[in-house]
Amino acid sequence: MPLFKNLMVVGPGLIGSSILRRARGDGQLAERLIVMDRDIAVLKRVQELGLADHITLDPADAAQADCVILSVPVRAIEPVARSLAPYLQPGTILTDVASVRGELGAIIPSFLPDGVEYVPSHPMAGTEFSGPDAGFAELFEGRWALLIPSLDAPEWACTKIQHFWESCGARTKVLTAEDHDRICAMVSHLPHLLAFTICDTADNLSAEMRSAVLDYAASGFRDFTRIAASDPIMWRDIFSANRDVLLETLERFIQDTQSMADAIRRGDDEAITAKINRGRRIRRTLIHNKQA
Amino acid sequence: MPLFKNLMVVGPGLIGSSILRRARGDGQLAERLIVMDRDIAVLKRVQELGLADHITLDPADAAQADCVILSVPVRAIEPVARSLAPYLQPGTILTDVASVRGELGAIIPSFLPDGVEYVPSHPMAGTEFSGPDAGFAELFEGRWALLIPSLDAPEWACTKIQHFWESCGARTKVLTAEDHDRICAMVSHLPHLLAFTICDTADNLSAEMRSAVLDYAASGFRDFTRIAASDPIMWRDIFSANRDVLLETLERFIQDTQSMADAIRRGDDEAITAKINRGRRIRRTLIHNKQA
Repeated sequence: MPLFKNLMVVGPGLIGSSILRRARGDGQLAERLIVMDRDIAVLKRVQELGLADHITLDPADAAQADCVILSVPVRAIEPVARSLAPYLQPGTILTDVASVRGELGAIIPSFLPDGVEYVPSHPMAGTEFSGPDAGFAELFEGRWALLIPSLDAPEWACTKIQHFWESCGARTKVLTAEDHDRICAMVSHLPHLLAFTICDTADNLSAEMRSAVLDYAASGFRDFTRIAASDPIMWRDIFSANRDVLLETLERFIQDTQSMADAIRRGDDEAITAKINRGRRIRRTLIHNKQA
Repeated sequence: MPLFKNLMVVGPGLIGSSILRRARGDGQLAERLIVMDRDIAVLKRVQELGLADHITLDPADAAQADCVILSVPVRAIEPVARSLAPYLQPGTILTDVASVRGELGAIIPSFLPDGVEYVPSHPMAGTEFSGPDAGFAELFEGRWALLIPSLDAPEWACTKIQHFWESCGARTKVLTAEDHDRICAMVSHLPHLLAFTICDTADNLSAEMRSAVLDYAASGFRDFTRIAASDPIMWRDIFSANRDVLLETLERFIQDTQSMADAIRRGDDEAITAKINRGRRIRRTLIHNKQA
């Protein structure tokens, strides 16, 4: 028997459409797939791709679902959840895939009808592409899905969402919202901010230099900027939603950069090499952890 | 007929051993391969790998070569060239693969015997691995080899080095030392500095957070830090050799980062999105240029 009877995915982008493909593929996740979006063109594309049993612009269709996944940009989660709330039936699980938790865990349950359970999650998977064509069924294979349930979330609902992500191929782990946001600032938000910014720095160069940078990008710049192709609204939302933690992490990073710059400026070979070697040690540990 | 009769590679690391493999493979580059290093263990490994006709610790063997390639860290180029100079024969071409040109183009010819031609180059290729086992014959395929000849370098010698890199599979381009160092600061040296530093920042976290970062590195951190596995002495040398240009480029980058941070701090959605979109535009142009 599938995990859910009627699974509703709101926002069939990279993550949402990957869930749909996975559910279509194995039949273990859901009996019926409902897809909602505010953009009719996106819905039609989802239909063309054969990823939905029912497409809809109407929040009232949430009444049919026993699980609703909000895979929309972070700052859209609260307003979209508010629009669906009046229609959600008792026993339904509401989840999301937000990269920043912030206060969502406190806000969302405050306006949900009784008996609707909010069990948020964050699949740490993605590519630099977006939209319903970008998804693929294997996206979550071997990746982490972080669960960030509130303390009063019922066991059965947490277990179901855990099974859901495991059926998608992911490993799961429970974290507090605060730990989640600190970890993601370091492993994901800061690297993206730097990648966008270094592109910006390159863009501010003289036209001649800019063209040279594009010609010779293969030596580092290319890897660095791959993630800078990611969806702008998604990342704008992440940067603002995780503002305080991100800016604090950035501040530390800039201090470390200044300290490397100082070592280079004063020709302190030992300090430069020590910093480089610390970097290499972290890389080696990554390789050991099979993350690289 | 091969391009060179006796090709001497000093420093059979990633780049040097890739040249040797290429030369071994096609027989068009050189009739005989002489490999010099200061480390006997490295030389023995090169011999085991079948990459040399003659291995040597003795600079006097440079007398046999009609082309000598110094593939040693940037700051070793001048001292190694000085140790070989007394033995180099007229008609020999001396080249190197340094990632920073600085004053090398002026210094090296000043102590070379008459008739020995210095035609430096920089193959923009590499991986994060190092040593004689890390090389492979295809490393230069489709990559740029930048030529940075002095104004009085004879045509025939420049043409030979150009053919040499083209036979290795590379595309060639002539640049001034100044342009070279500016471009490389942006496309290669700054990304490496940032990658080493973000690892350092992660390493300075609490043990608990550090372990979490390693667990969840897949979302950006991983790509960002791949280049941080690169050879420390090579990069220490590059950072110090290109100090002024690199620090200036870093300064611009930090200003751009602060400006992104300000936009996030004041919640200026438009500014954040504009910066992100500039980053994406550069990425798209990269893809268009087939560099990504």
